[in-house]
Amino acid sequence: MTDAATLHDKLHARLAQFARFGGTPEGGVHRPEATEANRDARRAFVEWLKAAGLEVRIDGIGNIFGLAALAGPDAPWVMTGSHLDSQPYGGRLDGTYGVLASTLAVETLVARHGAQRPAAVNFAVVSWTNEEGARYQPSVLGSQAYAGVFDYGWALDRVDGDGVRLRDALDAIGFLGTDMPAPRPAAFLELHIECGPLLERAGHRLGVFDRWWGCRKIELRFLGIPAHTGPTPMAERRDALVAAAELIGAVNALQHAFPDGALHCSVGRCAVKPNSPNVVPSEATLFVELRSPDPGVIADAHDRMQDAARAAADRQQVALEIRRDELRPAGRFSTDLQALAYAVAEGLGQSPMRLDTIAAHDAVPLARLCPSLVVATPSIGGICHAPDEDTAPEDLNLGFDLLYGMLERVLSHGLDGARNL
Amino acid sequence: MTDAATLHDKLHARLAQFARFGGTPEGGVHRPEATEANRDARRAFVEWLKAAGLEVRIDGIGNIFGLAALAGPDAPWVMTGSHLDSQPYGGRLDGTYGVLASTLAVETLVARHGAQRPAAVNFAVVSWTNEEGARYQPSVLGSQAYAGVFDYGWALDRVDGDGVRLRDALDAIGFLGTDMPAPRPAAFLELHIECGPLLERAGHRLGVFDRWWGCRKIELRFLGIPAHTGPTPMAERRDALVAAAELIGAVNALQHAFPDGALHCSVGRCAVKPNSPNVVPSEATLFVELRSPDPGVIADAHDRMQDAARAAADRQQVALEIRRDELRPAGRFSTDLQALAYAVAEGLGQSPMRLDTIAAHDAVPLARLCPSLVVATPSIGGICHAPDEDTAPEDLNLGFDLLYGMLERVLSHGLDGARNL
Repeated sequence: MTDAATLHDKLHARLAQFARFGGTPEGGVHRPEATEANRDARRAFVEWLKAAGLEVRIDGIGNIFGLAALAGPDAPWVMTGSHLDSQPYGGRLDGTYGVLASTLAVETLVARHGAQRPAAVNFAVVSWTNEEGARYQPSVLGSQAYAGVFDYGWALDRVDGDGVRLRDALDAIGFLGTDMPAPRPAAFLELHIECGPLLERAGHRLGVFDRWWGCRKIELRFLGIPAHTGPTPMAERRDALVAAAELIGAVNALQHAFPDGALHCSVGRCAVKPNSPNVVPSEATLFVELRSPDPGVIADAHDRMQDAARAAADRQQVALEIRRDELRPAGRFSTDLQALAYAVAEGLGQSPMRLDTIAAHDAVPLARLCPSLVVATPSIGGICHAPDEDTAPEDLNLGFDLLYGMLERVLSHGLDGARNL
Repeated sequence: MTDAATLHDKLHARLAQFARFGGTPEGGVHRPEATEANRDARRAFVEWLKAAGLEVRIDGIGNIFGLAALAGPDAPWVMTGSHLDSQPYGGRLDGTYGVLASTLAVETLVARHGAQRPAAVNFAVVSWTNEEGARYQPSVLGSQAYAGVFDYGWALDRVDGDGVRLRDALDAIGFLGTDMPAPRPAAFLELHIECGPLLERAGHRLGVFDRWWGCRKIELRFLGIPAHTGPTPMAERRDALVAAAELIGAVNALQHAFPDGALHCSVGRCAVKPNSPNVVPSEATLFVELRSPDPGVIADAHDRMQDAARAAADRQQVALEIRRDELRPAGRFSTDLQALAYAVAEGLGQSPMRLDTIAAHDAVPLARLCPSLVVATPSIGGICHAPDEDTAPEDLNLGFDLLYGMLERVLSHGLDGARNL
């Protein structure tokens, strides 16, 4: 058996192991942030980092780092990883694949390092807290805090749908750390499944993300008046859910206002109170997303969405409250790291497809700190955030080989050297 | 202080005590069936029954009875009571008022009985399980089981939104009883707040319910496909929430298809899965209610609702599943008991208003067993199922006096005798 085959076997064994943490009968995982299943995955990850001889750090928001100072304290740090939290009843690969592949690549390079020429960089493996934004909003929370988008205290005070603060949830699973975060990296690399159908349809086995779409995420609430659904005269009801339903329809219809799929729009979460069959709903909270590569489209869609929300509130005579309105501008990943990815892929006999990422990734906030990049493997049927999310085993191997190859080059040649090979 | 004043003081003291079981900062109560707050209220109720010397029985579905066999085992039983469960974040009077007033009236009549002529009837005070239908569906569950609409085993197997069976929830609070239920009654009387604005608007202080509206309760589910709200192409989404939103709007619009308020229609509960901000909703479950005094209106509205649901499902290419579809036909309360109520009210200087009840009440299933009646006090502003649900103290006293007077007459003269006084 070749070295590569051994590594690939290890990768699949570890993926299978991790699929059991919060594993669901449908073959996916239910591992939202700071749940017991998430704790179990975190513990297993920490054990591997320790077994590989890496220095483990758990920072104040539960980001887990494994450090290998191969090149000494003053050398640049190259960071690689993703996240271990999942969507509710989501898939086994989203995030986990990147963390496990990064760990395996770095531990292998560390083990082999003695036989190589002197190291040009240090490595840090990372699993970021609450990437999914399923249990806590905003998403990519741990990486945003690390990148200084907001401070740790604010991030820890976020509450989930049941009012549990992230601080307390992390404390309860033993992952509210006190360590210094990893040193600021000189580059960040993330391996991820595509989460879309384009690679598969174009017949490519690897993707390199060029741009990320902008995204406006709005949480808004309609406030009506609770009342008995029986005797309360229809004209006197102030039904928050009827207003919310009108807005859900309006948000969905926005897709037709912009040609050629320029806008992706959704209401993923709808929380109703008191949510009893025989009480007129007094509160309906919606989580709206508007995504586009074009800032003008997002601004226009945002205006229309607000108009529709106000019109719905007026029609039902309910109040409207904008609770959060966050714009994540579109941007571009490091062209230097893209060039490195294409070069390594070519050595693997591949010609990756240039892609936009419409999903958020931890690599996006990291791009504020350093050159950053996401490389991707195909998602079968484009399926993501669902139990049957999958990637062909040989494509998972190929993604690993790409990441490994990129890290190997920078280990030997440094970031500048690797790019100019 | 007069006897009546002492009883009124006791009534208000007990209402104040019960408002603390699950009391909310807004002045309401949060006491859904088989919660800890509900357990506390049940315990206090049982203590009072015991202190009054009544025989306490807790049956297999947690209905609590307090029996006073004043007239001997072969005499008819007159039953009176309501329920101690509340809506989520509901009001302090709905149900509780009837239970506490019934208890006080019966315990007073039992205590005074020695000085009176021989008793013509026995009394049973009752608190029925899960009247509200908030945590478990269907509503008026305990009284329906007692009335033989379905059997106890089926009722105990109902599950709440978290999958907890009623059997286990009652067991956990120590109220899955093993006693025989109370003997079949010869009459059932329920004192309740109106839960609507009509008494207040007409300037009446008492109401006597004549008819109850029919109600069709439908639980249906749209089934789509979970997917990432980012990269998934808009045209490929199968969004269950968009279909649900369309139906919520259609159900609300049904009110305009029938003139003069002949239809009350609502969607009180909407449960979404996975309900994550960045996952296309794969499940949306709606609880629809259609209420009318006219069976033809309910049937027509039901047809239109089903058409709208199918159209919404087709448009979003999601599946539609009807999970429950229950018709409770309209009906009429006992005219004999109505006559008794008017007669007693006249003695109190009142002229009660004849009302329909659009809300469900335990007295409705009881009407299958025996003459049954609900009498009502005004709801300030018509507010019900809300924390600020209230009735003026003097009207609460008057409602108590009406119930007391009715029970006092039947105690002395029997059901037939009381009617013919």
